[in-house]
Amino acid sequence: MGFDRLIEKIKETRNPSVVGLDPKLDYVPEFLIQEYMEEDGCSLYSAAKAIFAFNKAIIDEICDIVPAIKPQAAYYEMYGYNGMETLEKTIRYARLKGMFVITDGKRNDIGATMQAYTAAHLGSVQVGENAFSPFGADALTVNGYLGSDGITPLLEVCKEKDKGIFVLVKTSNPSSGELQDQLMDGVPLYARMGDLCEKWGADTIGKYGYSAVGAVVGATYPAQLRELRERLPHTFFLVPGYGAQGGGAEGVAAAFDKNGLGGIVNSSRAVMCAYQKEGCDPRDFAKAARREVLRMRDDITSHIDL
Amino acid sequence: MGFDRLIEKIKETRNPSVVGLDPKLDYVPEFLIQEYMEEDGCSLYSAAKAIFAFNKAIIDEICDIVPAIKPQAAYYEMYGYNGMETLEKTIRYARLKGMFVITDGKRNDIGATMQAYTAAHLGSVQVGENAFSPFGADALTVNGYLGSDGITPLLEVCKEKDKGIFVLVKTSNPSSGELQDQLMDGVPLYARMGDLCEKWGADTIGKYGYSAVGAVVGATYPAQLRELRERLPHTFFLVPGYGAQGGGAEGVAAAFDKNGLGGIVNSSRAVMCAYQKEGCDPRDFAKAARREVLRMRDDITSHIDL
Repeated sequence: MGFDRLIEKIKETRNPSVVGLDPKLDYVPEFLIQEYMEEDGCSLYSAAKAIFAFNKAIIDEICDIVPAIKPQAAYYEMYGYNGMETLEKTIRYARLKGMFVITDGKRNDIGATMQAYTAAHLGSVQVGENAFSPFGADALTVNGYLGSDGITPLLEVCKEKDKGIFVLVKTSNPSSGELQDQLMDGVPLYARMGDLCEKWGADTIGKYGYSAVGAVVGATYPAQLRELRERLPHTFFLVPGYGAQGGGAEGVAAAFDKNGLGGIVNSSRAVMCAYQKEGCDPRDFAKAARREVLRMRDDITSHIDL
Repeated sequence: MGFDRLIEKIKETRNPSVVGLDPKLDYVPEFLIQEYMEEDGCSLYSAAKAIFAFNKAIIDEICDIVPAIKPQAAYYEMYGYNGMETLEKTIRYARLKGMFVITDGKRNDIGATMQAYTAAHLGSVQVGENAFSPFGADALTVNGYLGSDGITPLLEVCKEKDKGIFVLVKTSNPSSGELQDQLMDGVPLYARMGDLCEKWGADTIGKYGYSAVGAVVGATYPAQLRELRERLPHTFFLVPGYGAQGGGAEGVAAAFDKNGLGGIVNSSRAVMCAYQKEGCDPRDFAKAARREVLRMRDDITSHIDL
């Protein structure tokens, strides 16, 4: 219940971070791309296969030191249904290796349509006598602009199958304030959205005090991160924007409670492209990813008491 | 440019409506499901194949009398990557039959990630020497909660490839007011979002006066529909909520300008399940869909001057 499963993995690895697997083909080492292109030509099929090989090698290297991965759906959709097959395989493989998987899809809709997204990503689908879990992640990012009708279909499945969601509250991008910072009766939209997270999650609170309805709050806005941590005591935070987007470890420390819990910090490119930054042999890309995960873990945990 | 291609098809068919293809397996006639289950068992693969057969038959029957289809991504994702292949095939087939295709994905993200969604749904993806258009729709619905950083990556492709987007402004669901109706300096959030649509679309205005940045405005809120039609003179409206959700034809008339243009009204279940409502032979499901499309066209056009 709540994010207990994730929190336990965070405690086990002593690492409140998540690796974003957003595998643009540019991030995949050339030797790996060539291997698949030689076999199947320059196609979406071979791109998707190369990406799975890339993901799998990284997962193998990091699964014992990081609690979770966060595949970004856009980078799989980009390679069509072949890419979506790679998303499915990546999720399945990471879960097999004991990792918690957050699909970053920012999905949103209402009623029966939101039920369909829920079934796709967290729940199951009945076909005749058989049930399937198409993508089968542990958590999904969602957008709450449509109000409660867009969220309640998720809550049933969160309860029934011990899953979670992260609602976009204050995003990490430069223009996030255009709407999110505007005041409604003196309260910014992001805080209103945060208040709704507390409400939506109220009867899914787990043993660490956090509900199954988390919030996305960007590392690039440390003041708002701190404010929201105080305002939303039962809401677990997914924090993008560390590293590449400019958020530092001192800033992200604001996402955590006094026990060092309450948040998980994402890093994507810095891990996936660590081999490029290091300038090491591209064949060591997964080991370079591991080194970056450890560096990030030490950077973040030096600022919090976990 | 703008929504000229869509508007021309609307004028050609004298029909400002779009058929939502949201094919839950429950909507597909039993005989068709059986056909595919017998062949391939109860699997996501056979479900996806049955759904494609269902969609194709409906497209064949209605492509000469309706300008556009709107597949809802959730109902394809629900059947995993097999479902996504059916989405791709449905879009391709409808475009081959001359229809305008709006993928209802409500996608949203920022920067490079939004570029990936844009490439997936409207643009193209390079793999080695080859370029692919993975889903290749004409327009995509998007969610603007993240501000301009989430929208500008789409605008380039809209200009370059003559595509369009529809931003969620005032959605048709009962709880849409929870956030969307809240006032910011005396202006409701939905109107703010609408104003951003005018701004984002400013340099993509086509010959009928509408930009490539449309808005989703629900038929269930006719007063806001009227208000937004006046406020957003260059924004083309996609209007869900007609029929099943309770929006009537008099109400949706407010979406249109004095030339009967400026909007397109969606109907999904009433068309897909017309055979159930009629109680006709399920084998005539596509013909029943055609009858419902004609009924809807006459209902809407009796209230506007097209």
